[in-house]
Amino acid sequence: MQKHVVGIAGLGVVGGGVVAMLEKNRAAIARRTGVEIVVAKAAEKDAAKTAHLKLSSGQVVPDAMELISDGSIETVVEVIGGTDFALDFVLKAIAAGKNVVTANKALLAEHWSDIFDAARDRGVTVGFEASTAGGVPVIRTLREAYIGDNITRIVAILNGTSNFILTRMTAEGSTFNSALSAAKSKGYAEADPTLDVSGADSAHKLVILARLAFGEDFAFKDVYYEGISKVEPADIRFATDLGYRVKLLALAKRRDDSAELRVHPCLVKESHPIAHVDGVYNSVLIDGEFAGQTMLYGEGAGRWPAASAIVADLIDVATGRAKTVAPRTSEGKLKVRPMTEVDARYYIRFQALDKPGVLARIAGCLGAQQVSISSAIQPERRHGGSVPVVILTHEAREGAVQKALRDVSGLDVITGETVLLREEE
Amino acid sequence: MQKHVVGIAGLGVVGGGVVAMLEKNRAAIARRTGVEIVVAKAAEKDAAKTAHLKLSSGQVVPDAMELISDGSIETVVEVIGGTDFALDFVLKAIAAGKNVVTANKALLAEHWSDIFDAARDRGVTVGFEASTAGGVPVIRTLREAYIGDNITRIVAILNGTSNFILTRMTAEGSTFNSALSAAKSKGYAEADPTLDVSGADSAHKLVILARLAFGEDFAFKDVYYEGISKVEPADIRFATDLGYRVKLLALAKRRDDSAELRVHPCLVKESHPIAHVDGVYNSVLIDGEFAGQTMLYGEGAGRWPAASAIVADLIDVATGRAKTVAPRTSEGKLKVRPMTEVDARYYIRFQALDKPGVLARIAGCLGAQQVSISSAIQPERRHGGSVPVVILTHEAREGAVQKALRDVSGLDVITGETVLLREEE
Repeated sequence: MQKHVVGIAGLGVVGGGVVAMLEKNRAAIARRTGVEIVVAKAAEKDAAKTAHLKLSSGQVVPDAMELISDGSIETVVEVIGGTDFALDFVLKAIAAGKNVVTANKALLAEHWSDIFDAARDRGVTVGFEASTAGGVPVIRTLREAYIGDNITRIVAILNGTSNFILTRMTAEGSTFNSALSAAKSKGYAEADPTLDVSGADSAHKLVILARLAFGEDFAFKDVYYEGISKVEPADIRFATDLGYRVKLLALAKRRDDSAELRVHPCLVKESHPIAHVDGVYNSVLIDGEFAGQTMLYGEGAGRWPAASAIVADLIDVATGRAKTVAPRTSEGKLKVRPMTEVDARYYIRFQALDKPGVLARIAGCLGAQQVSISSAIQPERRHGGSVPVVILTHEAREGAVQKALRDVSGLDVITGETVLLREEE
Repeated sequence: MQKHVVGIAGLGVVGGGVVAMLEKNRAAIARRTGVEIVVAKAAEKDAAKTAHLKLSSGQVVPDAMELISDGSIETVVEVIGGTDFALDFVLKAIAAGKNVVTANKALLAEHWSDIFDAARDRGVTVGFEASTAGGVPVIRTLREAYIGDNITRIVAILNGTSNFILTRMTAEGSTFNSALSAAKSKGYAEADPTLDVSGADSAHKLVILARLAFGEDFAFKDVYYEGISKVEPADIRFATDLGYRVKLLALAKRRDDSAELRVHPCLVKESHPIAHVDGVYNSVLIDGEFAGQTMLYGEGAGRWPAASAIVADLIDVATGRAKTVAPRTSEGKLKVRPMTEVDARYYIRFQALDKPGVLARIAGCLGAQQVSISSAIQPERRHGGSVPVVILTHEAREGAVQKALRDVSGLDVITGETVLLREEE
């Protein structure tokens, strides 16, 4: 039986999962693929994390760099996280002629070219299925199934924490803060949830998907992103009444020679399956010129889904499959479209004094920028108070909408912050 | 530039699509993969089908067997259909040392071992992504992404015609026959729709998915299947009122040493994304022990989705990737569980005289078989007429339910055919 020797850097939640899954399924994998995957060494400073794993004391080393100096190790799994030590470790592993499998989206979004150029020059491969959408095989789909097609759009739910919060707000009418607390108590949100709820984590993952989809050297700074903290229960209620769900979407769209890359809360029609991707689930919708619309859905994070993606990558390396996938290089054609030049339909909620003529004045500001209104909701009047005024627009240019919102904000009838959500078909 | 030479047997809807897609994307595929895919010859008897394709007259031959005698052709695409000539063609192509890419689910469901044994012995590969769920990369997902996991269940919508009909019945309250006419007029149903609406087409595809998921030599005869023609608008209405959608599901479940393989209309909870797979779309949900629940969704048929799957398979062969995928061989452990031993929750609609005591007598028959009722709907009484009585059961054994239904059918208050639908979580 052919063997493939692996070293695992990091025995936290995911790294420990990889060890346990390989242990349980080693014989099945060998029977199904013809290759036995052997964990030679694992690196972890925290001995407590290794106690429950079936590793001998000699197999666990404190310093990940020891994996690199072990000549028997053919492939290293990087599940250390962060971008400083992890980058150093990955580049040294590649330089030593080892393949790399990583779950580190921030590392890839920020240092893609350094890593893949080094791997190409050294003749090794880098697997990263676990970096995006956990156990959902989206990297494989883009690199293999869609490599002969022309992808025009990706619409994705890539952050389980944000999706859990929005789902909870929808189901229970709760506020962002209350739903965030629930997410924390269930272990779905970090103590500092900024990376997740700000849209930055989704933006990291979108860089990876857009690179594979469009064959272009996109960077993290190319992505416009905003998070979900401004979404209020009222917006979710209005959206529901209008036949929509609110989702934090990561969007990559190709149009002629430009690409839009953006992450923000979106209205999606209740009738589409993506509107029903709830809780911590992720999904990635791919529009291909030939394949049509495909959507992948599944668990976007967590010990076992991430471990399953890493094990699949290890099998790709062990069977030689990883070497058959050409890294998609820049076709050098796509410019990133500035956010002001994006076209969309908009949901806008103004908070305004409850006086006659208010809607007319708001509509006037929009009309002056050629932003056309498709429908408006002005709930029952509460004399003397402040009321929400909700407007849905026809397709309009973002720059014009932003200009109109600035004009509206100068009106003396506006009493609170305006909420802007975009619609995605 | 490395070249891979291909012959295409059949220039109908899908074969013509493959030629056109390769023509349009040849340069992009070569740039992205390093291999140029060249169509040397295509076989088609009907000259009218080839007129719009960019093929020279010398490239089109009337007899598919000419592709086999052409020594330059490395891979043949079989899109002839049927199981007689197609089997002969595929086996001869394999014997001549050619790889095969096919969209033919009936051929694979009925002659799997003949084909794959021959291919293994001859050292060639057989690609079949287009055979199941069209442009949705489910074969790749099962053979590559999930090969290290343990799959416990597949729940799939695999027949676009049936799904279109059920979607239409749900949206418009129409009958099966009226929705079938609509499907025919839109080109979604054949003149003879039996294969699609009887569940047989889904059963063919389920054999393929279950083989890949469980590594067992399942045959078409192992699948219990029933179609959708008995579903009435009243059932869809009741299901909707109860929070369900009705879908024709193909189910493969593993439990200990047995597997359930069945195709029939099912109630699925409205809150799950699979309930919102509408129209001619397909979807495949996979439960993996490690990966958790994953669902793939997309266009299950049609010229371009099928062509895109075939082109992806051709790229797999051309890049050497196809050779890295071991054909999953029998692990020889799973027995097929007889339908009478299946456990499920049931929706049962009786048509009965509107008289006092009817529900009690029906419930008595169920209770005598230890089938426990979870809820019952007996609509407003119409004196003297016949009314539907709908019962939802707790989990029960199919054999017991069938015995109870036979007992109920003997009651003098039953006036029409009983409809039985199963629920899937």
